[in-house]
Amino acid sequence: MKVGFIGLGQMGHAMAANLLKAGHELTVWNRSADKAGDLVAAGARLAASPAEAAEDDVVMTMLADDAAVEAVVYGENGILGAPALHVSHSTIGVPLVERLTRDHAARSGFVAAPVFGRPPAAQAGKLFVVAAGADEAVERCAPLFEAVGQRTFQVGTTPSAASVVKLGGNFMIMAAVEAMAEAMTLAEAGGVERRAMLEVLTGTIFNAPVYSLYGELLVEDRFRPAGFAAPLGLKDMNLADAAATAARVSMPVLGVVRDQLRAAIANHGPDVDWAGIALSVRQAAGRT
Amino acid sequence: MKVGFIGLGQMGHAMAANLLKAGHELTVWNRSADKAGDLVAAGARLAASPAEAAEDDVVMTMLADDAAVEAVVYGENGILGAPALHVSHSTIGVPLVERLTRDHAARSGFVAAPVFGRPPAAQAGKLFVVAAGADEAVERCAPLFEAVGQRTFQVGTTPSAASVVKLGGNFMIMAAVEAMAEAMTLAEAGGVERRAMLEVLTGTIFNAPVYSLYGELLVEDRFRPAGFAAPLGLKDMNLADAAATAARVSMPVLGVVRDQLRAAIANHGPDVDWAGIALSVRQAAGRT
Amino acid sequence: MKVGFIGLGQMGHAMAANLLKAGHELTVWNRSADKAGDLVAAGARLAASPAEAAEDDVVMTMLADDAAVEAVVYGENGILGAPALHVSHSTIGVPLVERLTRDHAARSGFVAAPVFGRPPAAQAGKLFVVAAGADEAVERCAPLFEAVGQRTFQVGTTPSAASVVKLGGNFMIMAAVEAMAEAMTLAEAGGVERRAMLEVLTGTIFNAPVYSLYGELLVEDRFRPAGFAAPLGLKDMNLADAAATAARVSMPVLGVVRDQLRAAIANHGPDVDWAGIALSVRQAAGRT
Amino acid sequence: MKVGFIGLGQMGHAMAANLLKAGHELTVWNRSADKAGDLVAAGARLAASPAEAAEDDVVMTMLADDAAVEAVVYGENGILGAPALHVSHSTIGVPLVERLTRDHAARSGFVAAPVFGRPPAAQAGKLFVVAAGADEAVERCAPLFEAVGQRTFQVGTTPSAASVVKLGGNFMIMAAVEAMAEAMTLAEAGGVERRAMLEVLTGTIFNAPVYSLYGELLVEDRFRPAGFAAPLGLKDMNLADAAATAARVSMPVLGVVRDQLRAAIANHGPDVDWAGIALSVRQAAGRT
Repeated sequence: MKVGFIGLGQMGHAMAANLLKAGHELTVWNRSADKAGDLVAAGARLAASPAEAAEDDVVMTMLADDAAVEAVVYGENGILGAPALHVSHSTIGVPLVERLTRDHAARSGFVAAPVFGRPPAAQAGKLFVVAAGADEAVERCAPLFEAVGQRTFQVGTTPSAASVVKLGGNFMIMAAVEAMAEAMTLAEAGGVERRAMLEVLTGTIFNAPVYSLYGELLVEDRFRPAGFAAPLGLKDMNLADAAATAARVSMPVLGVVRDQLRAAIANHGPDVDWAGIALSVRQAAGRT
Repeated sequence: MKVGFIGLGQMGHAMAANLLKAGHELTVWNRSADKAGDLVAAGARLAASPAEAAEDDVVMTMLADDAAVEAVVYGENGILGAPALHVSHSTIGVPLVERLTRDHAARSGFVAAPVFGRPPAAQAGKLFVVAAGADEAVERCAPLFEAVGQRTFQVGTTPSAASVVKLGGNFMIMAAVEAMAEAMTLAEAGGVERRAMLEVLTGTIFNAPVYSLYGELLVEDRFRPAGFAAPLGLKDMNLADAAATAARVSMPVLGVVRDQLRAAIANHGPDVDWAGIALSVRQAAGRT
Repeated sequence: MKVGFIGLGQMGHAMAANLLKAGHELTVWNRSADKAGDLVAAGARLAASPAEAAEDDVVMTMLADDAAVEAVVYGENGILGAPALHVSHSTIGVPLVERLTRDHAARSGFVAAPVFGRPPAAQAGKLFVVAAGADEAVERCAPLFEAVGQRTFQVGTTPSAASVVKLGGNFMIMAAVEAMAEAMTLAEAGGVERRAMLEVLTGTIFNAPVYSLYGELLVEDRFRPAGFAAPLGLKDMNLADAAATAARVSMPVLGVVRDQLRAAIANHGPDVDWAGIALSVRQAAGRT
Repeated sequence: MKVGFIGLGQMGHAMAANLLKAGHELTVWNRSADKAGDLVAAGARLAASPAEAAEDDVVMTMLADDAAVEAVVYGENGILGAPALHVSHSTIGVPLVERLTRDHAARSGFVAAPVFGRPPAAQAGKLFVVAAGADEAVERCAPLFEAVGQRTFQVGTTPSAASVVKLGGNFMIMAAVEAMAEAMTLAEAGGVERRAMLEVLTGTIFNAPVYSLYGELLVEDRFRPAGFAAPLGLKDMNLADAAATAARVSMPVLGVVRDQLRAAIANHGPDVDWAGIALSVRQAAGRT
């Protein structure tokens, strides 16, 4: 398929490389063009503007935040009005997804397809894709999703549906980390080593990656370098909070993790991993 | 091994049956003796008092709460002072575990060995045993733990260590249910069916029994009959809270789940499952 | 003094009337001009645009939210660049206050002067004015603040200082209401009438208007018509939350009241008073 | 009136002195008799046991906690069964109040009469008495309450009613302190001095002792020596929590203040004032 890809950060670059590897005809664009070097060497075309990357069938975007997506869509030589179906992989807020849905409706169409997974999963083509949009549009993207991910979930025909699933999922990661940190701190205060606690958890009914991956970080106090920095985590939790406010849904545990993220950043700096909320839990318990 | 078993509720009865099946010489005692009928028919001896069930190597207790354990140990013809090593499987508070440790120290010894698992797991001999106590004592119990469980974790040599692990684990179940209920309610308000949300969760990094088992209850609104009634869940959370207070550990998510359990019981009665905290989440969102 | 006044809602109209009564030469502007009728009849001049109301010494704005202030300042014929010192009485977010401070710096200057008090206090000229801005500018406004309020507090020379004081104060109102609702519900469940509880509170160390005024609403279940509607309260709490996020301050009680406001709106509609969070407390306790 | 007084700590001693000064015939008892020296010098009789202090009309108890009250009532030579009406001023839990109500019913009767006020108020006879019990019994105590307090509130005829009012009131103090600490920290991060924030609060609708008294502590960081130590505050919050659990009342702000008290004790030691929860708020914000 002829596909454009915009946003060559750690995640986006890996996804683009996998699209190329799968045989798709790729045009890329990034704010700093040097990130595209190896992709071009491998056969990709470098577009001179976002719009130029959106002249074919599909254009995928993978960007840091709402502002970056707005710039690429609505800014100078943006993709708004371009012929390609816009597939957004970024974790962005519900209001922006709704605006993109409206604005792309007349012409190219819009699919929200945020992904679960960290950079190593992106490199391995093992992301999970959560897609929502018109059935026809989502189906059209199937081979592209297959190139970047291990499994696609279609959660609805309205793009914002994918947004709330992604934001809810990220919230659940933070909630699991916070709960594990609370339980581990209680256990540690009671004389149980963190490692022993984690073995019980992952050896019983908590044997999921969310516990094993983050549990390792907690056991080893490995919060730097950040796999996903706390301020980015807080940004996502703020988007979830905004969605909850708009929908009038009370989410007390979301309130807790947002407070813990603020405390982690205030006390440990913006480069701490979002799992560093465990440090906030321990500090409150006087265990630093 | 010659072993006594006290407490033939749903869990205890299944465990006793598995001990018998594994070839151990079993003496049982229960407040209402009729619960022992089939065990006796299968070869168990019925003791006339708790003390009489504690005359051999080991006596295991599996009882509803602190009060029931106190009655069996310190009450008339209680097991205090009897020769058998006391192995406590009940979920009880840290102060009582510490008291039992002290009081059994002189003579028979004490091992705390709370279990993870619901009645079906108990029947299948698939419980997880979390044990703490003197190494020699825990080792001595190995064949007994093998008869009732699929795996044993020794988390320390001080019995209270097992207590905080068990209470922390039960708290983490409630935390996972609460987080899932919040995320599902947010997703549902955004047009995503609960079933679709659960499929994404268990299909990605939340593929652990704690999410799949409880997720089913949430998706199907199946909170009656209770697998584990909310007031029992609240009792366990209160024990965790007392341990946290004693250890000066702040546990904000524990505070949330305790409030949600109170709300679930207040609004849906004492026979609702502890996963019924999802109803509290939905009610706050006006989705009843 | 020659003064412009923009925003003739319930609060603004009363403030403008008091400025007129105090002898100031008043020019008014409102989106719907009919709100200005009686003020014009009493001697005020009606401006054709916001800019026209900002041609003299000072222009005061009292508007519903950030968007309304932005429209009046940055919109067509807005007051940006007009000669008058801009005094903003609205409860708006810190980022907007900072932007206004920057943008007015070159020319007219900017003072943030949010007020505490409900419409009856505005009519009686008994508001409390919390002002922040350059000393000279705040001093210049003294006779105007005297006309609308009973007391002025200067809390700093940076306008955003007044913002955080106002947002913090509004948060403390909600916190007091929530705490009182929790205590009253506990007391009521224990057989104490709400009225009796309130008498103890206001008869002892809680004898402040925040408890007596809101306590009456709670005792009498008087949440309609709203003195201040829950969605407006939630808007203010969201602004406080945004300020807390930017400053990395954990505010767990703010998290609680935001959840309760969501629940109150979800269950009782957008026209319920912000003190209606008491209904959320009672509902959770099954006392509806 | 002939009255016994048991418990001569800081509070009890001051109350007993005021009873004596008001002309009542006083018999006192304290675990360590030396605390009674000056009272005996001033005309009080020293009893040899609690029971001996309960031989006349009324016996008042003012003790540290549930355990101390139980010892004096149910212990050797306790007042259970003695002829005097038992008036309990201590802050104790609802279950103990209910037990005392039952056990005193047959003979002497029981009135719960916890007080609001710190030692200086006790010395000045300016306490607030919150009484509940049979009308006749409460009336009989009127002259005694007048001697120790500035005002009496009768909140019901069931003694536990006074308990929940007192526990709810103490909770509301903590809630006010926590909210003020959150708002002050937000304001301080925004460049506003704590003193300026407090002046706005107490100059507007927060002009009650709960804000002015505790506000001073927060502004001046005066948390030692403790007027009321954090562990005692936590004890009271635990009693409120137990009452809330029994009544199935969700109290999210109570959960917050209990966590903050744990954090204050963990980080600042058991001799910090209960208002030291402000330190927990600041620490989370990285402002230490």
